[in-house]
Amino acid sequence: MAILVTGGAGYIGSHTVAELLDQGKEVVVIDNLLTGHKEALLGGKFYEGDLRDKALLAKLFAENDIEAVIHFAASSLVGESMKDPVKYFDNNVYGTLCLLEAMDQAGVRSIVFSSTAATYGEPDKVPIEETDATHPANVYGETKLTMERMMAWFDQVLGIKYVSLRYFNAAGAHESGKIGEDHRPESHLIPLILQTALGQRPSIQVFGDDYNTPDGTCVRDYIHVSDLADAHLRAVDHLMKGGDSEVFNLGNGQGFSVKEVIAKVKEVTGRDFPVVVSPRREGDPAVLIASSDKARSVLGWQPKRNKLDDIIRSAWEWHLHHPDGYGDK
Amino acid sequence: MAILVTGGAGYIGSHTVAELLDQGKEVVVIDNLLTGHKEALLGGKFYEGDLRDKALLAKLFAENDIEAVIHFAASSLVGESMKDPVKYFDNNVYGTLCLLEAMDQAGVRSIVFSSTAATYGEPDKVPIEETDATHPANVYGETKLTMERMMAWFDQVLGIKYVSLRYFNAAGAHESGKIGEDHRPESHLIPLILQTALGQRPSIQVFGDDYNTPDGTCVRDYIHVSDLADAHLRAVDHLMKGGDSEVFNLGNGQGFSVKEVIAKVKEVTGRDFPVVVSPRREGDPAVLIASSDKARSVLGWQPKRNKLDDIIRSAWEWHLHHPDGYGDK
Repeated sequence: MAILVTGGAGYIGSHTVAELLDQGKEVVVIDNLLTGHKEALLGGKFYEGDLRDKALLAKLFAENDIEAVIHFAASSLVGESMKDPVKYFDNNVYGTLCLLEAMDQAGVRSIVFSSTAATYGEPDKVPIEETDATHPANVYGETKLTMERMMAWFDQVLGIKYVSLRYFNAAGAHESGKIGEDHRPESHLIPLILQTALGQRPSIQVFGDDYNTPDGTCVRDYIHVSDLADAHLRAVDHLMKGGDSEVFNLGNGQGFSVKEVIAKVKEVTGRDFPVVVSPRREGDPAVLIASSDKARSVLGWQPKRNKLDDIIRSAWEWHLHHPDGYGDK
Repeated sequence: MAILVTGGAGYIGSHTVAELLDQGKEVVVIDNLLTGHKEALLGGKFYEGDLRDKALLAKLFAENDIEAVIHFAASSLVGESMKDPVKYFDNNVYGTLCLLEAMDQAGVRSIVFSSTAATYGEPDKVPIEETDATHPANVYGETKLTMERMMAWFDQVLGIKYVSLRYFNAAGAHESGKIGEDHRPESHLIPLILQTALGQRPSIQVFGDDYNTPDGTCVRDYIHVSDLADAHLRAVDHLMKGGDSEVFNLGNGQGFSVKEVIAKVKEVTGRDFPVVVSPRREGDPAVLIASSDKARSVLGWQPKRNKLDDIIRSAWEWHLHHPDGYGDK
């Protein structure tokens, strides 16, 4: 029996594939490689293609004995989603519908799903709990919430059980040094700072230092990508043991400000670089911190690399030795 | 300039086409005729096909100068939606996405959209207002709510203005006697009772007479299909005059119980027939009544055929002279 990983050549997908392979699992990956990297796949059987290619999906399910699906494949750039909503609803929502249809036809009844803190939008309170109101502030978050709601109906009507994992800020790289973060364009804070430390960018921009936070910059909850990967494996186990459908936040429960992250990068890398303070960006909440109590109690999940130092050190190792990422884009 | 009516060969669609033609508008219809009837089209230019056929949609928008879209095309059987969610998300949500994409490409920036009271689910209070919470109790309602949410983003990002009309119970037939209600299978109360009066069904089933209502049977808000059609034209005018995106309930604001409707049918038709009381159906709220104050004040809409007698008389005229409906299914 194999685990199907959609978007397995992406950042979190590839780290999850690595974790599955480490545990001796049989892995099948589908990825259209539009944003993923073939080189990020450390093993498993690979299908290059899109979830909306129904014939390919049917072939994949016919050729493999899939026991569960871990579903990462999606477009995930907030800014792009606010320019091209068609792309996001089509790729994310319709792509997921095609996947659920193929799962139903193949009799696969378990899916672990990559959701996001963006489903909450501006939070009513922090730390954010899973029962808090969801009011996405961008199309990306809306499509992920729509995917969750759709899955709830596929559970109720067709008995397809799901675990939805709402990530906060994924960061860091695999301890092997073989895989790490390589987004084109890059929009995440830690790789942007590391690229600045490498001299690939002239300076790092801080959007707003007048927020109501201890040092005035935004506070986010960073979580190591290998801890995220571990949570996915635990979520699959939960479903395989007959566990019910659930939504879990995944974060450290600990926030770091933009200034703290920059200072830590300077410390870890021993390099200095210019920091430019720009005006606030629209739609950036001051503080986003997750309560992950539910994942800890139900999944027995415990982030192991939860010091900012661990996260940045692993990411720096990757960037230092792969200054051009996978070099394929 | 023409108005595109998707699903224009359906029940409410065909009555809206009739109203548009009466007002001298140029009308283009697209309908896949899976549930619609070619004979229900009293005029206009007709394209037979599906919204998910992107090539056909592009052709339609290229061949016609469309100023606004009235969007009815959807699968709309609650029971079926709870057996086949793929069909409902695919046809309703993905179909609407394809339509919005084609509109965007053609520069069409106005859409009036057929939504439903089913977006509310079990209401928190009656009469239901547009600002009340939405928690659909079935896949059909969920897909319509998803379509609304998607449109809100297409408005925000691409400036496509929308009016979403949440209907309560559409009933009645056109005064010309030429068009009326013909669903296969039929699931609506008034045609089912009329078919019983015609002897086409042995009896009419009442699902539960122990609700907390005056006579124990469910209370619903019936609205004449020609009044609904009129609201669609007013909604198009609202958008053409630069009005903002809005959601409106459409109902009488007056509820009638199942027993009252049956009694009125017996009175209007002069026929008697057996009534069988069965247990409650799951998911039927006791009372669904709309507040349509907002449509009245913003659109100047005023239902003209709002007596139960008017509604049933017009429907009976249609059923009596078209006992086999359009006779095409």
